Amino acid sequence: MTITTENPRTNGVDTATLFATLDAVKAQPEIAKFQFRATNEWLDGTHSRSTYSGFHGAMQEMEHKRVTTVDSDHPEVLTGQDEAPTPVEYLLHGIAACLTAGIANIAAVRGVQLSKVSSTVEGDIDLLGILGLSGGDVRNGYEQIKVTLHIEGDADEATLRGIVEQSRRRSAVYDVLTNPTPVAIEVVTG
Amino acid sequence: MTITTENPRTNGVDTATLFATLDAVKAQPEIAKFQFRATNEWLDGTHSRSTYSGFHGAMQEMEHKRVTTVDSDHPEVLTGQDEAPTPVEYLLHGIAACLTAGIANIAAVRGVQLSKVSSTVEGDIDLLGILGLSGGDVRNGYEQIKVTLHIEGDADEATLRGIVEQSRRRSAVYDVLTNPTPVAIEVVTG
Repeated sequence: MTITTENPRTNGVDTATLFATLDAVKAQPEIAKFQFRATNEWLDGTHSRSTYSGFHGAMQEMEHKRVTTVDSDHPEVLTGQDEAPTPVEYLLHGIAACLTAGIANIAAVRGVQLSKVSSTVEGDIDLLGILGLSGGDVRNGYEQIKVTLHIEGDADEATLRGIVEQSRRRSAVYDVLTNPTPVAIEVVTG
Repeated sequence: MTITTENPRTNGVDTATLFATLDAVKAQPEIAKFQFRATNEWLDGTHSRSTYSGFHGAMQEMEHKRVTTVDSDHPEVLTGQDEAPTPVEYLLHGIAACLTAGIANIAAVRGVQLSKVSSTVEGDIDLLGILGLSGGDVRNGYEQIKVTLHIEGDADEATLRGIVEQSRRRSAVYDVLTNPTPVAIEVVTG
């Protein structure tokens, strides 16, 4: 005897709840206002540690299921101790993870079962900028970021490419990287 | 008997090597061309994992002292499984860690011993953008990012504020967030 049941979670995405969330936001747009947070502590040299715990969303304070800490340092060739990836490397994770999450959601909504999504992200940076040796003609940050994304699933090539393109169009990290975002720095001394 | 020795590593920063690095770059600017990388693998739903291993710099392929992996997921309120911080939260670590590393380096060069650097980063985001419910007038990414940075050390307030300001001026992540950075996405299917 074979029992065939429909898989309710294409790509591990609960599409019924996803649609319910969209309906809830349509009915009450204020629940879409989120604030994410990190707290960072200097450890030694160029080594620091950030902690993620709570955030604001859906009109309430929320806590992540687990507290997460991530470290950064500079590599030894830049006179750090290389205790962790550099700050700029976390931007590369951000764009890959954002595109990939969007791809899984969009594919699920479009009924496409994915079998693989992987990517390599490369960020080119000329350190003459941050070292103050460029005379001002080299920027401090990445000159360019390149994402090479591999996608496989039960759909034709055009459909798979369309899913990636829709994820790019809706990506929060892609927007922050490619467009200006205001960053205010308030300093407290003493 | 008291033996007083000069501390060769203010703030844990090896300033002699830092100056030697600057001299080396001045003599051969090509060594400042770096490429940082992350590889990302989709796990399930909106959960993915990035790995940091090698990078290019100083005209050679280099490996981090340790391989680091970081995960991202969406929170449960956004129909994820909340297995890890969201992709956008890593941008907040990036700016805090970049400013803090710069502060430690610049303070060391200026002979200021720091006793504390900590920060809280808040990023405001209206998810109407990424949910496609805004009619196009809400951006996908952060509307604004606010860094509240606490700094203590053996210098007056103006000197401490000057160190933070110089770090901001030379920060790679601050540049990427506040100015446009080109992001190319190449898709490979099948």
